[in-house]
Amino acid sequence: MSHSFDVVAVGNAIVDVIAPATDAFLAAESLPKGGMSLIATTAADALYAKMSAGVETSGGSAGNTAAGIASFGGSAAYIGKVAADVLGEVFRHDITAIGVHFEPRPLSPTEPSGDLGTGRCLINVTPDGQRTMSTYLGAANALTPADVTAEVVQAAQIVYLEGYLFDPTEARAAFVKAAGLARDAGRKIALTLSDAFVVGRYRAELVDFIDSHVDIVFANEVEVTALFETEDFDAAVYQLAAKVEIAAVTRGAEGSVIVANGQRTEIAAEPITAVLDTTGAGDQYAAGVLFGLAKGLPMATCGKLGAIAAAEVISHYGPRPQASLKALAQTAGLI
Amino acid sequence: MSHSFDVVAVGNAIVDVIAPATDAFLAAESLPKGGMSLIATTAADALYAKMSAGVETSGGSAGNTAAGIASFGGSAAYIGKVAADVLGEVFRHDITAIGVHFEPRPLSPTEPSGDLGTGRCLINVTPDGQRTMSTYLGAANALTPADVTAEVVQAAQIVYLEGYLFDPTEARAAFVKAAGLARDAGRKIALTLSDAFVVGRYRAELVDFIDSHVDIVFANEVEVTALFETEDFDAAVYQLAAKVEIAAVTRGAEGSVIVANGQRTEIAAEPITAVLDTTGAGDQYAAGVLFGLAKGLPMATCGKLGAIAAAEVISHYGPRPQASLKALAQTAGLI
Repeated sequence: MSHSFDVVAVGNAIVDVIAPATDAFLAAESLPKGGMSLIATTAADALYAKMSAGVETSGGSAGNTAAGIASFGGSAAYIGKVAADVLGEVFRHDITAIGVHFEPRPLSPTEPSGDLGTGRCLINVTPDGQRTMSTYLGAANALTPADVTAEVVQAAQIVYLEGYLFDPTEARAAFVKAAGLARDAGRKIALTLSDAFVVGRYRAELVDFIDSHVDIVFANEVEVTALFETEDFDAAVYQLAAKVEIAAVTRGAEGSVIVANGQRTEIAAEPITAVLDTTGAGDQYAAGVLFGLAKGLPMATCGKLGAIAAAEVISHYGPRPQASLKALAQTAGLI
Repeated sequence: MSHSFDVVAVGNAIVDVIAPATDAFLAAESLPKGGMSLIATTAADALYAKMSAGVETSGGSAGNTAAGIASFGGSAAYIGKVAADVLGEVFRHDITAIGVHFEPRPLSPTEPSGDLGTGRCLINVTPDGQRTMSTYLGAANALTPADVTAEVVQAAQIVYLEGYLFDPTEARAAFVKAAGLARDAGRKIALTLSDAFVVGRYRAELVDFIDSHVDIVFANEVEVTALFETEDFDAAVYQLAAKVEIAAVTRGAEGSVIVANGQRTEIAAEPITAVLDTTGAGDQYAAGVLFGLAKGLPMATCGKLGAIAAAEVISHYGPRPQASLKALAQTAGLI
């Protein structure tokens, strides 16, 4: 392989189904607003039957981040598992069309779990722009260490891992393999905590994994306080920062905080006229920061790139940038 | 069946794949801008591979119209053919979620053509909002007279037929069956010419079908002049109006003309700030007019409802209304 990448992202390959919903609908379906629940096939079918007419678009947290890095003009690769079905082909098409390197080994019908379809995330968006996600992982769940190719991981400056992959055993093994390969090749390892429930389920394992493998952590306010079981945001950020080179923590409309080697940088959120759909905000923030880090830019610039990318994605439906993030960053004089 | 419907729409059940494109891309792919080409599986795969990252959303001309009628608060049914695959389920979900009655007989793998997938329309949208469509009909092409159920057709005031169905022999037979059932039940029969190429291919058959079966015709400027092989718009409209009770002809930004029983009504286009994607404009115009006719509203009101629906759909990506057309019509004091 003659490629070299700024970032390789490893995550759940998911197609999003996005539909408008009311708060009453969330309540009736017992969906925790703003959260992410994992659901089985039957529950997914039942929920989908009740949802409004929707739009399908490629998603998946790390996949969105890879797409964002490509939109900044960076070089990104992606590792994730799809099925050999229409939605798997849609996922592959969309991520490669935006310029991300992705050579999937689609789940074959003869493999164990070969009957699983490409993963789907049912996203109900309330009028305030909040998204409530119910994920049927399907084939994404069947990622194994064999899907993590050494050439791709070693060709990237940073390997970026999605915390959601801590759930299935084989996928977590794939995740650990990617981290090991990156470590051996002298690459940086980044992790996003992904979700407060993931943190709740695997707190000790995540702390252990961060201690032993991780250089850069992304989290939001809820996730970082859950990780250290504290209600004190600053205390949680500093506990995290003591464990890693770079801790980047988002706070929604209040912007973000990056602590890098003990130095704290506060970044304001970009002003926008209207929040339409917050899906992908954290993923695009990570894209901006990772792109900046790979290019060796100052930490304040990295944070600002993250803020610009997050602002772009929440101003429209869908989890990936529609405008060129490169053009936005150039207009802002950042690159 | 205890239902009664304002309109039953019969058409190609299609999922749209919408992606941004440049004029240079259209030229390189020899795609006639603003047109609709039918393509085979291999050509569809090759074109899709070259397109930008996209969004999938339920479409199909008559399906869009049925969705629009439901959005106005009307009762609509739909007849069309999907495959037993993920996109078929997406199509069924979306049209029923908006309130349209649709009980498909999905193509079974054991039937002839059972290997066809749900139809797809690859839509390249240029920066001027024009859409250029390449349609792989797939299962939609496999509509047969058996899919046209008498109970549904006879329960509707108006049966609305999509001209695209003139292409496949069996589908055209389904189309003729629907028209016959409607006629026998004393219902009105509406037809949209759909596409200038359809008109070019089947000019004589279309004129004959209109003469023998049709009460209401929808067309745009290009289609109506193609039908009568003239460059004179007014002459074409009057030739059409002489054949049917109601001729409704759209002229893009110049609005539309309805000639009903010899009486001409001119309707201005609704002013909008920016055209994002013209996909579905004609379909939503038809939805407004058909809804108005079913409710017995004056012709100027019918046209205005069409103009409002068309304006809503071209102000966003995707061929079906996102706002409530009922609310828009109420705000405008039309219903």
